[in-house]
Amino acid sequence: MLDFDALTHSSGEWLRGIGPESDVVVSSRVRLARNLDRFPFPPQASEAVKGDVEAVLRGPVAEVLPAGSPGYVRIDPLESLQRQFLVERQIISREHSESKGPRGTGIGPQESISLMVNEEDHLRMQVLRSGMALEECWQEISQMDDRLQQQVKFAFNSEFGYLTSCPTNVGTGMRVSVMLHLPALVMTKEIQKVFQSMHKMGLAVRGLYGEGSQAMGDFYQVSNQSTLGRSEPRIIEEVREVIPDILEYERRTRREMVQQNSDKLHDKVSRAIGILRNARTITSEETMHLLSSVRLGINLGLIEGIEIPTINELFIHTQPAHLQMLSRTPLESSDRNAKRASYIRQRLGAGEGDADE
Amino acid sequence: MLDFDALTHSSGEWLRGIGPESDVVVSSRVRLARNLDRFPFPPQASEAVKGDVEAVLRGPVAEVLPAGSPGYVRIDPLESLQRQFLVERQIISREHSESKGPRGTGIGPQESISLMVNEEDHLRMQVLRSGMALEECWQEISQMDDRLQQQVKFAFNSEFGYLTSCPTNVGTGMRVSVMLHLPALVMTKEIQKVFQSMHKMGLAVRGLYGEGSQAMGDFYQVSNQSTLGRSEPRIIEEVREVIPDILEYERRTRREMVQQNSDKLHDKVSRAIGILRNARTITSEETMHLLSSVRLGINLGLIEGIEIPTINELFIHTQPAHLQMLSRTPLESSDRNAKRASYIRQRLGAGEGDADE
Repeated sequence: MLDFDALTHSSGEWLRGIGPESDVVVSSRVRLARNLDRFPFPPQASEAVKGDVEAVLRGPVAEVLPAGSPGYVRIDPLESLQRQFLVERQIISREHSESKGPRGTGIGPQESISLMVNEEDHLRMQVLRSGMALEECWQEISQMDDRLQQQVKFAFNSEFGYLTSCPTNVGTGMRVSVMLHLPALVMTKEIQKVFQSMHKMGLAVRGLYGEGSQAMGDFYQVSNQSTLGRSEPRIIEEVREVIPDILEYERRTRREMVQQNSDKLHDKVSRAIGILRNARTITSEETMHLLSSVRLGINLGLIEGIEIPTINELFIHTQPAHLQMLSRTPLESSDRNAKRASYIRQRLGAGEGDADE
Repeated sequence: MLDFDALTHSSGEWLRGIGPESDVVVSSRVRLARNLDRFPFPPQASEAVKGDVEAVLRGPVAEVLPAGSPGYVRIDPLESLQRQFLVERQIISREHSESKGPRGTGIGPQESISLMVNEEDHLRMQVLRSGMALEECWQEISQMDDRLQQQVKFAFNSEFGYLTSCPTNVGTGMRVSVMLHLPALVMTKEIQKVFQSMHKMGLAVRGLYGEGSQAMGDFYQVSNQSTLGRSEPRIIEEVREVIPDILEYERRTRREMVQQNSDKLHDKVSRAIGILRNARTITSEETMHLLSSVRLGINLGLIEGIEIPTINELFIHTQPAHLQMLSRTPLESSDRNAKRASYIRQRLGAGEGDADE
C-alpha cells in the first residue's frame, strides 16, 4: 500500500531545486517505452491480456527498484482522486491514470523512478532528477532496463529497434526532456523565438504536465520528438546541446530586466509574494503565475527568507488533487481556491494583519 | 513661521478616526464666507486692495485663534510645494493656494481651524472635526465669527444676509459638509442612488478635495448647495438629517457583503494589505483604492493590528506634496511612486521576505 498521507507532506527529489543550472533547469527526465514480446500492445489488448502482462511484469519491476523504494502499486483499484494526485506528482502520466484495466507503477525512492505497467506501452520507465542531470538519468534507467531484460523479453526488431504502440516511439523508445523555468523570456515575449528555434531543430516544447498541457508557471519541457535511427547517447546529446543557449538567453534576459527595469521587476516580485501571503481565495492559474514571479525573485536575490524548494513544492502541492488529499475530502472549485490560499499562507507565512490567523 | 517639518510627521484632529459614527463618517466641517464692508471683493480687488484687506484681517484672525495654535501664516511667499502640501492637508483650499496677491491663513490647534484671508472671499473660516460633529463645528466657528465682528465690519445686507463673491454663498455664507467613507456602496454600485437622492434634496456630493475632485478612496463629501433664505441651524439640520439614512445604507450593504460574499470580501481586503505592504512602486490612485479596502476591512474586523488613524493618515500622507516634503526634494512621478511605496511599507510594516528591508 502506498502511504498517500506521507506523500502529501513530502516531495520528490526532482523538486529539491538543486543540481547544475538549477536557477533555470528544474529537472531532467529520461523515459523508455518497452513492450513484452508475444503480447498484444495495450491499445489492442483485452482486460485479460492486460492482466497477464501485469502479472508478468509486476515481479521484475518490483525487483529492479532500489532498496528503500515505496515499491510496486496497483493503479486500477485507486480512487480517481488518488490517481490524479499521482499525476500531479508526476509519478504517473495522465494516460496511465485514465486508461482502463489492470495496471500498476513501480515507484522508486524520493519519487525519482516510475515504472508504469500497461500505460500506452506495456512498460514505461522514467527517471527524474533535480537540475541538469540527463546523464545520471540515463545511467540509472539504462541499468534498470538491462536488469529487466535478464528476466523478460521485449519486442525488438533488428531493423527498427524497440517496437512501441505509437510509431513515434519506435527505435530507442526514449524520450529525453528537460524542464526549464523561463519567466524572463515569457515576460519579454522572447519565448516565441525559443519555440521556433526548437521546432526547427526537431525538438518539442511542452508545458508542466507534458503533451497538451499549458505552460503554467512559465515552465517548459524541451524534449526530443523522434527516437528512431539514432543511438540513445545521440538523442541525449541533441537535447543537451540546445540547453546552454536557452539558459544563456533566459539569464541574459533576466540581467537586462534587472538593469533596465529593476524597480518594476522588484515591484512585480514583491507584489507576488504579498498577494500569495495574504489572499483568502486563489485559482491554480494565478498561483502558478505568482509563484513563477517569486521563483524568479529568489533567483535574482530580490526576495530573501524563502527557499527555492518551498516554491517548487508549492507548484505541485497547490494542484487540485493535492489540496483535496490535504483536506481529506473532495472539494468544489471555490473551496479548493480557499484551501489553496490557506495552504499557501501556511507555507509562506501569512500577512501579520490578518484577523483569522 | 509654520513648522512644515513637524506638520509632515503629525496629523490633524479630524484624521483621528474617532467621534460618533466614525466607521463611516470621517469628518465634519462647517465653513463661513465673509467679506469686509467697503472693500472690493477679491475677484475685483487689485493687489494693493488685497494688501489692505490682509492688513486689516491679519490681527483679528490671529487673535480669535485658540491658545496653542500655529497662528497666522502668509501663504503668498510660500513655495508652490508648501502650498500644495497645505491643500493636501485640507488646511487651505486649492483656490487659496492658486490665487494671486497678499493672502494668509490663521491655523488653529491640531489643524481643526483654518481662517483663510483673501480666498474667493476676504475671509473663509472653516472648522473641521473627526466623526459626526457638525454641532461642535458650528459652535466653534460661530464664536469666532462673533468675536471677529467685534473688531471688523462684514458686508451684510438686511434682506439677503452676508454678501459674498459668488451668489451661491450669499445669505449665511455657510457650507456644512460631512466626509463619508462609502466603500460598500461603491463596490455594489449603489452609490449612484445616493447621488440621485442627494441631488433631489438639493445637497451636493463631492470628492475628498471638494469641488471638481474625484471621489478617491471611496470618500464622499455631502454638503448643502445654497445658503440663502435659511438659518444656520436649519442648514445644519438639512445636512444632518440625511446622514443617518446614508450610514444605515452603507452599513447594511457592508453586512450583506459579509453575509453573502464573506470569502470574496476577506480576500479583497487581505490582498489590499498584502499589496500595500509589498509594492515597490504604487500610484496615488491605486493607493487610495487599496487603503479604502483596508479601512473597510478594519471596520469589519477582518484585519487586526492596524489602526484606523494610521489608514486615515496614509490617505493624506501619500499625496504628492507630502511625499516630496518627506523626501525634502521635488520628485518626478516615478520617483514619487517609489517613495510612496516605501513610505507605506514603513508605516504598515513591510513584507518579511523582502531582501531590501
